[in-house]
Order: sequence, then structure tokens, then C-alpha cells
Amino acid sequence: MTNLSNNLDVLMNRKSVRAYEDKPLSQDVKEAIVNATLRAPTAGNMMMYSIIEITDENLKNKLVKTCDNQPMIAKAPYLLLFLADFQRWMDYLKASNVDKFNQENNLSMYHPKEGDLLLSINDALIAAQTAVTAAEMLEVGSCYIGDIMENFEIHREMFNLPKYTFPVTLICFGYPTEQQKNRQQPPRYPKDMILFENQYRHIEKDEFDNMEIERNKISKPNFLPGCSNEAIHMYKRKITSDFMKEMNRSVKAALDSWTK
Amino acid sequence: MTNLSNNLDVLMNRKSVRAYEDKPLSQDVKEAIVNATLRAPTAGNMMMYSIIEITDENLKNKLVKTCDNQPMIAKAPYLLLFLADFQRWMDYLKASNVDKFNQENNLSMYHPKEGDLLLSINDALIAAQTAVTAAEMLEVGSCYIGDIMENFEIHREMFNLPKYTFPVTLICFGYPTEQQKNRQQPPRYPKDMILFENQYRHIEKDEFDNMEIERNKISKPNFLPGCSNEAIHMYKRKITSDFMKEMNRSVKAALDSWTK
Repeated sequence: MTNLSNNLDVLMNRKSVRAYEDKPLSQDVKEAIVNATLRAPTAGNMMMYSIIEITDENLKNKLVKTCDNQPMIAKAPYLLLFLADFQRWMDYLKASNVDKFNQENNLSMYHPKEGDLLLSINDALIAAQTAVTAAEMLEVGSCYIGDIMENFEIHREMFNLPKYTFPVTLICFGYPTEQQKNRQQPPRYPKDMILFENQYRHIEKDEFDNMEIERNKISKPNFLPGCSNEAIHMYKRKITSDFMKEMNRSVKAALDSWTK
Repeated sequence: MTNLSNNLDVLMNRKSVRAYEDKPLSQDVKEAIVNATLRAPTAGNMMMYSIIEITDENLKNKLVKTCDNQPMIAKAPYLLLFLADFQRWMDYLKASNVDKFNQENNLSMYHPKEGDLLLSINDALIAAQTAVTAAEMLEVGSCYIGDIMENFEIHREMFNLPKYTFPVTLICFGYPTEQQKNRQQPPRYPKDMILFENQYRHIEKDEFDNMEIERNKISKPNFLPGCSNEAIHMYKRKITSDFMKEMNRSVKAALDSWTK
């Protein structure tokens, strides 16, 4: 580890916070987080994302259920939903007489496609991670809820989402409890399994084996019944789980709804 | 603007840097950026992304062309390609005898779907924005190249990308030239056009009009011929451009390749 990494403490020390002190974020703190987020990079300065702050208790309680039963969502003092949003551009074009332009130029109205969706998703995630880092700088913890990509139809209705939006991530914010402050950072994959040079590199069996050996030194593995190693445990626990089945269904439905 | 925003200077002052001093990043600086990136949040600690550092001049020069003719790409002293990557998990499962587990449990092998792709894309972007912020903290500028989502088939071949990967963003890093340091930050949309409470909100015509008036105070608009306002200018320049046509085609091809 280089000395320079000390300058990056706020990034190096980050870990997800899933339990919060019973202490609201002040208006100043919320504003500072949002102001920093608005400066996040965005493709062509087009800001193809929106943020919904969720303050309504009913909505929060519903999200607990629709996002794979996570009670922490209702307990988070500050809850931001990040949308990929091309709808604002469609509304902007309409308000700016694009119909007349199309007519004069013999064009038919443009409809967003897969590339627009992915650019919007990029914008939303880049903004989301900027919000997380801004919070971190103010000693506010956070946790991403990817499960917001499940139950697309229900979330569309709950938040009145128009066609060219997609709820891509939800973030819980709050001050960490003592227990959360003291929790160890989980180990990441070693750098040479993530960072390659010029070409993609498939990881070899012995590298996976060594990684498991190193991880087992840090904490004793606790696998699901019938799972003989970490990969199989994750296969059962995550990859082939009911919530991933639902996420796969939901994301496909959202893609179809956007493009058809 | 609150005083707290001063603590977030590194985020508040960020702007894209598209011209670089002829000065390489030291090994220490590169390592600090990557080490911080590896600590980025990742769904289920599964690290469903990879990073390819591009050092090969031939690859850089090709990217200039395949990413909508941007010569800055070849001039960037440090160039990182971020992949959504579920392939490593497929390789890990294979190395961990998932076949045997499937057989014993009467399961057929799992194939990643749309939800896995989007979770992987989330991971990749969250890591990418962490790299950008880490660089910023070390006074290294950066610029996202979304055009990497074009020409999927060519990029797949150039970087030897396996089936369950997707090149979702490319980032140029380098020390900003004086001109870039002095460049004004582009204006963003006003907060109340991005941040909503509990429900999605369509933006009204007068809000778009007011935004254009405010923007025109900062810099004189310079619209493409035949474009009477900023929305129509962007419609012609970006939304219906040849590069967006190609990105839409390419992303659809990538989605099909992943899911079929």
C-alpha cells in the first residue's frame, strides 16, 4: 500500500452500513449530498437521471417487502431512489416544438432505445456513487439496494414512473451504529483477479483456490447445507435464488417496456 | 450553498478533463487509484466487474476510431476500460465443481440473464466513479467515454472479451492542461428538476424555458443550422446522431449476445 492511499482514506475505509443511529440527517447535510451529486459527470451534460427522495412511511414499508424483505429500508433516515431517466428529455423535446422540427425535416418522432437506456443507467449510477462518497465525507453511512430492480411493475405504480425511466438503484443513508462502525471490511478479490492489461484474462482454478484459502484465514466460512465451497454456496444463496429469478424477470420486463 | 459543501470540494469542483499534460501517472498514483476502486461497493461482495488497463498503442489508436473519432483517447496517459463481468463467476463455478452440485441436485447449469447483466453494470459503474473520484483527489483529471458501448463486436475482438462481459465505460485519465484547469464548469439542471419527493414529476414547459434563459446568461448558445432552441439542437447533435444510432444497435447486439 502506498502513502498516497492515505489521501484516499474516505474511499479506502468505506463499507456498507446496514444499521443506523436513530438520528436524522440535517437539511444542510442532505443538501450538501445532493449538491455534490448534481456535479457528477453525465454523458453530454444531459443528466439522464432523476432522484426521488422517499419520505412517505407507506412507501418505505412497501419497499421493505418489494426489495426482498429488508427491514433496514424503512429504518434508514434518508432514502434516495435513483432513476435512469430519458423521459425528461422526451418532455423537453415536446415542450420545445420538436414536432414542428420533425415535420419540417420529414422525420418521425424519435423513440429511446437500448443505447439510450444504458447511457441513462450509466448517468444514474455515476450520480449514485457520487452521493455515496459525498455522504461518506460527511460521516454518513450508506447501503445500495440492488433489489429495487425487482418488481418493476409495482415500483412503476408506487412512484408514478413514466415509460422512459427505470429505477436502477436505491440507497439507504444514515449514521452508523457503533456495531457497524466496528465491523470489519469484507475482503475483496485480489487486484490481479480484477485488473488486466490490454486483454481479458480468464482466472485459473488455482487462483480461485488461493483466494478461498486467504479468505478462510480472515473468517470461518459458513456455507449453506449441501454446499462444499464458497462458489457453490453463492450459487445457491445468490445466483440461483428466488430474488435473482425475480430480478431477471423484472429487468427483462423493464427492457421490453422501454423498447417496445 | 451550505458551508458543508466546502468539505466536498473535490466533488463540487469536478469537471471533465479532455486535454492532458504530457506527464505520465506514477506507478504510485495508478496503484492508489486502483486500490481505492477495489473498495467500491459491490452487490453481495461479488465484484461483477473487471478493469482492463490499455497500454498498447495499437489498441489506443483503434479506440480513437471505434469510439466516435476522439483523438484524446490515444493521448490519455492512463486509460481504463470497465467491464460488466459475470464471466469470472461462471469460471469460478466451473472451477468449484458446480457441475457435480447440479447433478446431485437435479439442476441444469445456470446461465446469466438480464438481471445479472444489470447488476454487473451497476458494479462496473460504481467502481468507475470511485476511480474518477480517487483520481480527482490526487489532482488527476478524467473523462468518461460512453462511446465504448458502440461497435460491440469490434471491441469484443480487440480485448478478447468472453460471452458474459460487456464493456460499459472507458475512462481517460491525465493531468489537466492549464486551459482545462481554467475552463468553466458547465451548468447543470436546477435541483428541483432532478430531485423529487415520493413521486416522479414531469417538468413543465416554463421550467425548461427558464432553464434555457438562465443558461443563455452564462454562455451564448451556438445551435446547429436549422435548430431554433437548445432541445432541438441536442436532438440533432446527440439524440438522433449517427453515433447514437450505432450505440443503440451495438447495445441491442450485446444484450442479445448475453441473453441468447
